[in-house]
Amino acid sequence: MKELNSLRTLFLERLKSRVTEKEPKSLYDPVHYILDLGGKRLRPLLTLMSAQMYGSTVEKAMDAAIAVEVFHNFTLLHDDIMDAADLRRGQETVHVKWDVNTGILSGDAMLIMAYRLFNSYDAQTFYDLNQVFSKTALEVCEGQQYDVDFETRDDVTIPEYIHMIKLKTSVLVGCALQMGAIIAGVDKKEQELIYDYGIHLGIAFQLMDDYLDAFGDPETFGKEVGGDIRENKKTYLYLKSLEDQGCATELKEWFSMDFNDMNEEQIETKKETVKVFFEESGGAAATQQAIKNYTDKALNTIEQLSISNDAKKQLTAFSLDLMSRVS
Amino acid sequence: MKELNSLRTLFLERLKSRVTEKEPKSLYDPVHYILDLGGKRLRPLLTLMSAQMYGSTVEKAMDAAIAVEVFHNFTLLHDDIMDAADLRRGQETVHVKWDVNTGILSGDAMLIMAYRLFNSYDAQTFYDLNQVFSKTALEVCEGQQYDVDFETRDDVTIPEYIHMIKLKTSVLVGCALQMGAIIAGVDKKEQELIYDYGIHLGIAFQLMDDYLDAFGDPETFGKEVGGDIRENKKTYLYLKSLEDQGCATELKEWFSMDFNDMNEEQIETKKETVKVFFEESGGAAATQQAIKNYTDKALNTIEQLSISNDAKKQLTAFSLDLMSRVS
Repeated sequence: MKELNSLRTLFLERLKSRVTEKEPKSLYDPVHYILDLGGKRLRPLLTLMSAQMYGSTVEKAMDAAIAVEVFHNFTLLHDDIMDAADLRRGQETVHVKWDVNTGILSGDAMLIMAYRLFNSYDAQTFYDLNQVFSKTALEVCEGQQYDVDFETRDDVTIPEYIHMIKLKTSVLVGCALQMGAIIAGVDKKEQELIYDYGIHLGIAFQLMDDYLDAFGDPETFGKEVGGDIRENKKTYLYLKSLEDQGCATELKEWFSMDFNDMNEEQIETKKETVKVFFEESGGAAATQQAIKNYTDKALNTIEQLSISNDAKKQLTAFSLDLMSRVS
Repeated sequence: MKELNSLRTLFLERLKSRVTEKEPKSLYDPVHYILDLGGKRLRPLLTLMSAQMYGSTVEKAMDAAIAVEVFHNFTLLHDDIMDAADLRRGQETVHVKWDVNTGILSGDAMLIMAYRLFNSYDAQTFYDLNQVFSKTALEVCEGQQYDVDFETRDDVTIPEYIHMIKLKTSVLVGCALQMGAIIAGVDKKEQELIYDYGIHLGIAFQLMDDYLDAFGDPETFGKEVGGDIRENKKTYLYLKSLEDQGCATELKEWFSMDFNDMNEEQIETKKETVKVFFEESGGAAATQQAIKNYTDKALNTIEQLSISNDAKKQLTAFSLDLMSRVS
């Protein structure tokens, strides 16, 4: 999608020119560092696309798009501390390159910087953007907390898991799209529709992430294939596989092993074994089906939107492209 | 000040009824815990007083006052993690009672909750409150970062120190007052005047804190007297004392000792010796003079405000009361 690439290039230019806080360097250097690490920039692109589809301009939506990206990177920064992750997009995480205290405080600053980016909008638009943004931001915190809570629970249900990824991932996708619609001045009902499209797309996206983590191509996946299996993450793939009584006991046993007590060879064996369970239990197929279902929900919602047919085609192509990704 | 006590009681009631987020408990229990720890609640009281003085009501200013208090406690929560502090107002800090990850995430949630408390205002008031609030919030982060940076620098100047405490402490006092004025609908010039009063008062307050840390009465101070000396904190008292060439070398030596390498008896000796240096160098007297100067600036600013004479008297009494505090 060539158009999307040029939109991304424009976004990256503006991101640089709008996030200019410099002193104290020890506070803002990590902010610029994490924002420069790359990524697909999907969320801000959705804000820009949404505004455009509803007849507004990329320029008008730019500050909201930057706010979404700054907020998203704030969550990555603090999540990396909580997960004790050493690497982010192949580079050192902020708390490794600097230290935990720097990571906490620079993250705090990013959250505030995200809010400040709305300042360029008129009071009513500012108010409306803030409503959905703050609601979403708090939900993302709740999602992260549920994710943490689930680590020490062994009775997580599928609806609970879906609710968690909805909060942790989807609501920000919905928010990004709704903000574009707010800027374009469309009515509340239409805003909710494009938000819902984002929710469905976000859940499909996260389920795809779960699937690729186990079955992705190591050449293209970008992260460690099987990282979730190593860390006993109770993903959709795992929870669905547990529904097969024939696999449940053994699968639970594999997922009670602490990777700190295993060597790499043992972890490889675990990954291979668990993947077989995922397939034989029907968990893998069920996950693919769920991805398809949520993608279909997203595509159906596109059809209901009050946008041009061209825009519908573009959004459909974008969604399908996202769901055929390999990384 | 009886009136102030009843205002505080009302504020505490509303704080409880407005901050009601509950699930997930692991996210919100620490929020309620830190908000219940107590404290003088000075900042929200200033918002309520300011709104009242300018002809608005306590009710109208309540949500902004709660936002200020929630924000202030967010900074305490994250600062306690960064300072590895075990106690806050005599109780376990959040990261000790729970853990660091909980402290980070619950703090993040509090920052967002503070923003959401403005939702009850009309769009224009919401916009105006957000401007000063976000600007202030980012400055508080910058102040905290300078404070951290100063720990490893031995060339901190008095103007740099004043700038740091202005960012870390005073701007939120100014912001609290300005928000009351915004809610009452006074013009920008008057808003800036009451903000300036807060800046002067906040600096005087922080310098008093520095002074009491060394010379406060252990019976009434509430914290460890000499805690700053133990931790080699480069306070105004210390920096001013360094200006006396006769003391500078020895004082620097005492402040290069790591308290981890000292027993309690050695630390007591250090505290007593350093306090003598603070007095003999003239640093203590200079600090008292600086407190008086900033208090005078605050009182002079009160005289310029467009409020009733009764309100001026009340604010003056409040300021003097604050500066005659022993804890």
